[in-house]
Amino acid sequence: MNKKTNLMRIIVCGMGVVGQSFLKLLLASSSTLYKEYGIKPRVVACVDSNGVAYSPTGLDLEKVLEIKEKFGSLKAFDGPKLPSDNYIEDLDAEVFLELTPTNLTTAEPGLSHIISALRSKKNVITVNKGPLALSFSSLIELSDYNNVMLRFSGTVGGGTPVLEFAKHCLKGDKITSFSGILNGTTNYILTRMADGLPFNEALRDAKEKGYAEANPSLDIDGDDAAAKLVIMANWIMGYKVTLRDVDKMGISNIHPDEFTKATAEGKSIKLIAKCDKKDLFVKPLPISKDDPIYVNGTLNAVTFKSEHSGEQTIIGKGAGGMETASSILRDLIEIKENMTKYQVN
Amino acid sequence: MNKKTNLMRIIVCGMGVVGQSFLKLLLASSSTLYKEYGIKPRVVACVDSNGVAYSPTGLDLEKVLEIKEKFGSLKAFDGPKLPSDNYIEDLDAEVFLELTPTNLTTAEPGLSHIISALRSKKNVITVNKGPLALSFSSLIELSDYNNVMLRFSGTVGGGTPVLEFAKHCLKGDKITSFSGILNGTTNYILTRMADGLPFNEALRDAKEKGYAEANPSLDIDGDDAAAKLVIMANWIMGYKVTLRDVDKMGISNIHPDEFTKATAEGKSIKLIAKCDKKDLFVKPLPISKDDPIYVNGTLNAVTFKSEHSGEQTIIGKGAGGMETASSILRDLIEIKENMTKYQVN
Repeated sequence: MNKKTNLMRIIVCGMGVVGQSFLKLLLASSSTLYKEYGIKPRVVACVDSNGVAYSPTGLDLEKVLEIKEKFGSLKAFDGPKLPSDNYIEDLDAEVFLELTPTNLTTAEPGLSHIISALRSKKNVITVNKGPLALSFSSLIELSDYNNVMLRFSGTVGGGTPVLEFAKHCLKGDKITSFSGILNGTTNYILTRMADGLPFNEALRDAKEKGYAEANPSLDIDGDDAAAKLVIMANWIMGYKVTLRDVDKMGISNIHPDEFTKATAEGKSIKLIAKCDKKDLFVKPLPISKDDPIYVNGTLNAVTFKSEHSGEQTIIGKGAGGMETASSILRDLIEIKENMTKYQVN
Repeated sequence: MNKKTNLMRIIVCGMGVVGQSFLKLLLASSSTLYKEYGIKPRVVACVDSNGVAYSPTGLDLEKVLEIKEKFGSLKAFDGPKLPSDNYIEDLDAEVFLELTPTNLTTAEPGLSHIISALRSKKNVITVNKGPLALSFSSLIELSDYNNVMLRFSGTVGGGTPVLEFAKHCLKGDKITSFSGILNGTTNYILTRMADGLPFNEALRDAKEKGYAEANPSLDIDGDDAAAKLVIMANWIMGYKVTLRDVDKMGISNIHPDEFTKATAEGKSIKLIAKCDKKDLFVKPLPISKDDPIYVNGTLNAVTFKSEHSGEQTIIGKGAGGMETASSILRDLIEIKENMTKYQVN
């Protein structure tokens, strides 16, 4: 980074809801970013599946958003062509944002993108869970080797700073275990099932409200929660685990009697992700209504247990375009603070 | 601080449960503190209302704890006398810990202690709410003027890092309001009242369980919650307010019908502290059981509302000796990190 100008050049790869929200947030936050954190962000390229907006001196973000909203793609963007097919490696930038959709089988295309960016000594921010769920420790090693940072606050909790809380708020203490509700879609479905709806009707309701995707298997089979669990286990607990290490059960085969039994005991069934010395699982479990992680609707909740400071729970929306964009901004600020700290004068 | 040895000399003023827990925590954490944070803590003086343990080269903490436990006071401690009556100013130390009991009318003796320590260029950590509730902005000004830090994580939430969460986990965003349950004693009493107990019986139960003091007025009249609200409003929102600015109502005059009415609406009465652009109050209010701040027993809960990242709630025990001691340790680490950052080589 050019210290004199505080310029931070950014490549945005993936222009869905989160990518667009991030551009809007940059427009709204530019004076705060400069005054409070000394960051002058310049988005030099935005890439979606059909097109590219590129400007080595920084894009007009309002124009990029307008084209994307009007045409649904950046194909219509009128500007200079990318100087190279291998733009992730060849473009000059301080930060690469990986915002393509999560794939929990191959982790692609996100995994290749992140590797290219780290190898060309770019800091990486991603909200894509796939690469981290499948290759966490090798990606961290690669970032360390190249002396850049890999940050992923938005992969867990959306805008809720779950990872930051665990890393920054309990200094001098040691987290010994955590458990929680890491997927809002299944929490909504289970909340409706506790009201008496059968699984299929609750799922249909979730789809109608936009909480579940057309193909909801990533959520209801527990894979999304398991991916977040893996990211937390690696980052917070220092475990070297991948998606394959998670003992996982989804929510589609819960017998209605289990809800009745849970209600009679002042409990309700929740999809719980847990990590401690012996367990790494995602499964439906009855949770007391007095437990702080007992939250309804699409909320997420995680309880951390520490050696000295006891148990703390953090609750928030686990998704949302602007909320997740705010987590990218936090990562950007952390990268800036670290770049400044380690900078040789 | 002597950079070469990383020595951090500490004066501990107040040797109740929190002070003793802090010494135990230091004993348990010394290798972590040195390896992870480069801190070599040396407690040079411990002061209680009857006596003093002093050693300019660092006290034997096990011996101090033994004397305190055996005799209930440090009067019996056999060691060098303090070199000065004005020990807070005259002793050499990097950090002064103010742990005397809270007084919300005069703020003494804590206020005078903190002023003396800041004036003699010592960093101050306190868990005493009185001085901050009555003189927040002038104490911060005094610490800035003397180029030292004043930290007070343990004043709100005990071991739960409520203040750190607000300061460190939402960078780039702006908290616009917050509300929550800031007092565990009254939350316990209200939980029992929601079960059907009259106020006096619920209070007696709280006293029997050790949750309420013999004179519980600081809690039940809402003063303790109001003091925490003032600290948060100043520190998080930048307001310049004191205890006198809080619109305050306690829990001793809630009519049983209000509980019945709340229950019928799926709610329960909680003592809510709230701060936004127009409100700064502590009062009993009906809260939906689906609201994340709806917690029972002695738990505390706060919801922060931000411009971009939505609403987040943090829940934890609001008290406890070891938990509060862990917050002092966090403050100590933060002070060390800042001393290193601003140190001239």
